[in-house]
Amino acid sequence: MTDTKTPLSEMRERIDSIDRQIQQLISERANHAQTVAKVKGAGLSAIDYYRPEREAHVLRMVVDRNDGPLSDTEMVRLFREIMSSCLAQEDPLKIGFLGPEGTFSEQAVRKHFGHAAYGLPLGSIEEVFQEVAAGHADFGVVPVENSGQGMIQVTLDMFLTSDATICGEVELRVHQCLHSQAGKLEDVKRVYAHAQSLQQCKTWLRINLPGVECIAVGSNAEAARLARHADDAAAIAGETAGKIYGLKIVAQGIEDRADNTTRFLVIGRSLFPPSGNDRTSLLITVNDKPGALYDVLSPFAKHGISLNRIESRPAHTGKWQYAFFIDVSGHIDGDALQAAVHDIGESAATIRVLGSYPVALP
Amino acid sequence: MTDTKTPLSEMRERIDSIDRQIQQLISERANHAQTVAKVKGAGLSAIDYYRPEREAHVLRMVVDRNDGPLSDTEMVRLFREIMSSCLAQEDPLKIGFLGPEGTFSEQAVRKHFGHAAYGLPLGSIEEVFQEVAAGHADFGVVPVENSGQGMIQVTLDMFLTSDATICGEVELRVHQCLHSQAGKLEDVKRVYAHAQSLQQCKTWLRINLPGVECIAVGSNAEAARLARHADDAAAIAGETAGKIYGLKIVAQGIEDRADNTTRFLVIGRSLFPPSGNDRTSLLITVNDKPGALYDVLSPFAKHGISLNRIESRPAHTGKWQYAFFIDVSGHIDGDALQAAVHDIGESAATIRVLGSYPVALP
Repeated sequence: MTDTKTPLSEMRERIDSIDRQIQQLISERANHAQTVAKVKGAGLSAIDYYRPEREAHVLRMVVDRNDGPLSDTEMVRLFREIMSSCLAQEDPLKIGFLGPEGTFSEQAVRKHFGHAAYGLPLGSIEEVFQEVAAGHADFGVVPVENSGQGMIQVTLDMFLTSDATICGEVELRVHQCLHSQAGKLEDVKRVYAHAQSLQQCKTWLRINLPGVECIAVGSNAEAARLARHADDAAAIAGETAGKIYGLKIVAQGIEDRADNTTRFLVIGRSLFPPSGNDRTSLLITVNDKPGALYDVLSPFAKHGISLNRIESRPAHTGKWQYAFFIDVSGHIDGDALQAAVHDIGESAATIRVLGSYPVALP
Repeated sequence: MTDTKTPLSEMRERIDSIDRQIQQLISERANHAQTVAKVKGAGLSAIDYYRPEREAHVLRMVVDRNDGPLSDTEMVRLFREIMSSCLAQEDPLKIGFLGPEGTFSEQAVRKHFGHAAYGLPLGSIEEVFQEVAAGHADFGVVPVENSGQGMIQVTLDMFLTSDATICGEVELRVHQCLHSQAGKLEDVKRVYAHAQSLQQCKTWLRINLPGVECIAVGSNAEAARLARHADDAAAIAGETAGKIYGLKIVAQGIEDRADNTTRFLVIGRSLFPPSGNDRTSLLITVNDKPGALYDVLSPFAKHGISLNRIESRPAHTGKWQYAFFIDVSGHIDGDALQAAVHDIGESAATIRVLGSYPVALP
């Protein structure tokens, strides 16, 4: 650099000094991570010393002490990447997901495991479960719930026939907007979007653009691109996607459910200790008799446990049986949940802890 | 956390303290980055204060002082992400690339600009140039050379008809292997791979697996997946891709050119100052007369400048003219290159500096 002493070059020198310190600390952290691996006496793969509860705890501390200027999301992202690199010093984690690359599921993988983990794009949700069970993947990431369209049944059903555990959850939020060149609703004769986005905005489209042609394309980015070159077309895409394609917003928040979140589960083969802010997923089967569901649910109320979700499915185990997927607050190691599970065991046909895992980070 | 004082919990406390320091430094760095933006008196978009030469300089220092345990590549990756987050505090950079998401071109975007930049997947290389010219994208990333298949002509030709400048280069290395379940060449009756990989390994396949059926599929990951479920099939994929799918290596380094690198150019609208280790791309047109190429090249030798690449194309500007794309070492601001360009100007029909930019990082 040929800078003389200007305010800019002084500032750059200060940034260089900060970078030197950051680098030294990251190297030190990577050294400690290696030492932790040795203390644990584990093998040579990342899976042997990956601790989701520890990572969640670290990231929550990052959020707690963040005073900006970076957003919590950006700061968490950077620490995920630092942990991802430290962990990948041996054989990196292998994460199965519903491919191909570039999908929403891969975004969830990267948000949770960072970019130093290996992603295995697979052909179906079933295959993700199979690869994890067979040990070809260390973990899998599968969509389980879209707030617009409810639970994803194929994912729930896989728990009925596999031994998969739940080791984490990831949430991706999407707010859909309608974008066009001119930004006027009355000009719109065609709407481009990914099929899933069309589905998510069905009601809004029916009410506000009745009879208008809806065309499914490969991605919402593709939709925005097509809308840019047409006077009479609009695209459904996230706020930023439309913006970067230079489109104007016709309408915001057009998804049928205002909080359009896709929730993913991280599946694995083992259970992990508490992180301090956890959720527990239970799979409970009951015989079909009057009051069966009440008998299952009342112990939660009795022991002061919050229910987050409940979903019933016909069980595959026998006639007249029902399976309930129940998410509650807290870790299975906690006294209250232990007591509730004990009480439920007296009336339920079977009860299985699918997993206790850290609540999703921002 | 309920840990008592064990070696593990002590180690974790030390890591927590390191994390606190890293976070404080990253926040401080982000604050300085904002101040630099103000000192420059620039607008509110990242493009106004993005300095590729400064980033390259910072990353080279990172490599120089890296003593492990993280690899240079991982450490550079983390600093790219930190800089990417700091820069994206205002409107993030918008980077056009040949879509869809998940392609090799997107990998190049992420390697160079990190994950806080916006990626705009576009439909063609031409469109990337157009979007940059129109200001819809701040920069574009386009493939320009594959060491197996040579220069990508459509990219070169775009420089003949557009005002695009070159602001950077990115290199991605791929080593292809043949993988199968059993790892034996004699069992292989079918080979799955992405069409481009089949092309890159054509000679090896012809010699070692004559007459064997080659089947193009969507990606090499898909190929590895298909090969896992067949006794008589193999897949072409990178070393790690095969490994994560649990396949055995049949043969390594099967690409026809041993150093299988794809080189990308970062295109933009302006020229940037020296980073300390730069390359310059020139576009020179000459009239078709004896000795024209010699006249163009001799000034480089005279002024001690290394030629990295030369490629001739018929120019679109007039009959009997030829265009030469010439890459040389050094920055256009350097005395030697200034002198050489001056000398060339006396014999060439036209000479245009496409850009001086930092040499690609690992």
